[in-house]
Formats: sequence, structure tokens, C-alpha cells
Amino acid sequence: MTLPIRLVTPPDIYAPPSYEHVAIAGDFAYVAGQVSKDQDGALVGAGDAAAQAAKVYDNIAAILRHIGAAPSQVVKITTYLVDANDSAAVGAERKKFFGDHRPPHTGLIVAALGGPEVKLEVELVIYLPQEAATER
Amino acid sequence: MTLPIRLVTPPDIYAPPSYEHVAIAGDFAYVAGQVSKDQDGALVGAGDAAAQAAKVYDNIAAILRHIGAAPSQVVKITTYLVDANDSAAVGAERKKFFGDHRPPHTGLIVAALGGPEVKLEVELVIYLPQEAATER
Amino acid sequence: MTLPIRLVTPPDIYAPPSYEHVAIAGDFAYVAGQVSKDQDGALVGAGDAAAQAAKVYDNIAAILRHIGAAPSQVVKITTYLVDANDSAAVGAERKKFFGDHRPPHTGLIVAALGGPEVKLEVELVIYLPQEAATER
Repeated sequence: MTLPIRLVTPPDIYAPPSYEHVAIAGDFAYVAGQVSKDQDGALVGAGDAAAQAAKVYDNIAAILRHIGAAPSQVVKITTYLVDANDSAAVGAERKKFFGDHRPPHTGLIVAALGGPEVKLEVELVIYLPQEAATER
Repeated sequence: MTLPIRLVTPPDIYAPPSYEHVAIAGDFAYVAGQVSKDQDGALVGAGDAAAQAAKVYDNIAAILRHIGAAPSQVVKITTYLVDANDSAAVGAERKKFFGDHRPPHTGLIVAALGGPEVKLEVELVIYLPQEAATER
Repeated sequence: MTLPIRLVTPPDIYAPPSYEHVAIAGDFAYVAGQVSKDQDGALVGAGDAAAQAAKVYDNIAAILRHIGAAPSQVVKITTYLVDANDSAAVGAERKKFFGDHRPPHTGLIVAALGGPEVKLEVELVIYLPQEAATER
């Protein structure tokens, strides 16, 4: 029997026009790249990587809450920056969010993200076994 | 008992020289980044992002058919562009392909892709439970 | 019952300050992007993509050994370069490492990696079923 795929977007974060934020399938949840948008889709922290990172991790926290997962269930994280000089500030927010949990991380500097003011995007994979997911 | 990993390339799309297009393992299929190449490896739609995106999704359709998966089993999609101005045209092809299925999406602008005329590359993860996969 | 997530860093490769190299969860192991650092964190092969690729695959070999996986269990590989001209040299090291195993591959040219001398980074996903993993 094939368990269903659930595509979800938490009600308290920005709803993208063409996709859902999370797919839950098998033992994992795949999360779309997160940017520092508020619930109305307005960018928070223009020009300020630390402020953007703080908002990105607020959104990630909302996603984790919505699917019933803890930060310690994140098994992979990827940070996309447009300016290598933002690495330290963005990394500090990552460490603050995860605490003692240290998931594998890849940091990349790309040419651009979804708009000229977007300084970072964070993508993650979460371990969320079906037996746990289907209890909810 | 460890179920086998299957590496496959559909016969009706371009065969890369050094890798297979798909790995099926556990409950998932991982797909290599897809570009707009025809069966002979020639690029389709040079200079035209919409034409390239249409061909990329033709190739993705061929992959899904070959492994017995539906578009609704795609759980993550990543679009790599070299020009942010191509986002709308490429996103329109994505929406046309997926219809009501809205998998988590990350869109990135990179410095270059596999050749000067390649305007986009699309990568995906598919939910394909082994019990289903091994029936075929 | 939810099986635990294991985050591990092999003792014989560079220990990153803020993350572990590998997360093992469910049937998969997720590996952080690997660069050509030696055990002390010093970059090997500055300016030489082939030398960097050789060291990266040495590190990947150490990771596979540490978690008890073979190269044939790699189900996805992503290569990030900063110079498209390095593709052939880096691809040659990939083929040498994997031999007849040809996992799906995505190759991207990004704006920069973790430092001005880092010419490549390689990320991978490994199929590592829990029943195998928990035997160790």
C-alpha cells in the first residue's frame, strides 16, 4: 500500500503562488527554499543579511511546528547567499536556531535569488517517519 | 535485506556519457538535472527559455513514464536559471506540467550551466515506494 | 517507533566548526558539500581543480568507509564549480572514483564557494537502509 504524499503550507507564513512549502512522503519532508518574506509576501530585512536570516528561521520554525517536527529532525540544510561576506552573520542565525543539533550543511554563493533584495535562501530536508506523520 | 538500487536512463531521451538519469532506492527516485537536449544530445531551443523549458518537461515526462511514476509523485523540484528574466516563462511551463500538483520548488540563478546556450536545468526528487517499484 | 537520526563526522577528515558531515536517517545518508580540505582544515590543491577533486573524493571515501557504505550506494551527486573549464578534470575524478557505478549527476557553475581558492564542492546522497545501519 502506498502512503499518500501530503503537500502543505503553514497558514501563518507566505503562500507561494505556484507551489506548497512542504511535501511529506515516505520518511521525509522536503521543504522549498525559504526567503525572508512575511505573511503577506513582503520581504523583511532588505539589505540586512542577519535580519533576513532571522526571518527565514522564523519561517522554518513555523514549518516545523505545522508538520509536527523538531529542529533536531532536520537532516540536511543548504544556504544560498549572493554575497560571501554575509556568511558569518547568516551562519550565526543557523547556529542559534539549531543549538546542539548540527545537521550537514552546504553553503553556496549563487548569482542571484528571487529578486534583487533577497540576500539568502535556505532549503532543508526533514526526517519525518510516516508512522509519526500519519498519527497527526 | 537490502533492496537493490536501480540506476536507469529511459531509452527515449539523451544518454549522458558518465551517469544515468535516475537512481531508484528506498522509497525515492533521484533524478539528475535535466536540460533541453534531444535524444541525440543536441540542445533544443538555443536562446529561448520557454522552448528549453518545454523540452526539459518532455524529458521529465519520459523519465516518469519509464519508472512508472506520475507527476503527482514529484516531491521536490529545483530550477536553475542563468538569467532571472527567464523565471516567468520557465515557471509557466512548470505550472503547465504539474497542474494542480504543487511540489515544493526552489529557484536559483547560477553563474552558468552545462554550456553557454543552456538557459535552464531542472532537478527533481520523486516518491516511488519500493513495493510499487519492485512490482514492475 | 522512530529510529534515531545519527549525525557523524569521520575522525580522519576535517571537522567543520558548525555542522557534522553526515546525517543518517531512514534509508538514506545526507552528506554536506565536500571541499578539498585536509584533516587540519587546510585547503589542498589551491588553483588546481584536478588535485582538489582527488582530495574531495578521498574525503568522500573516508565518509563512506566510516558509515559502512560502498560507492555503489551513492544515489545522487552534485558538483559545484566556479569555473566551467574545470568540468572535464573534475568529471574525470568522479568517473575514476565511481567506476561502473553511474549515479545521477547535476553539475552547476556557481558564483563562489567557501573561500576564494575553493574550486569545487561535491555533495551526495547515499542509500543506507536502517536495518543495515543499525547493525553496525
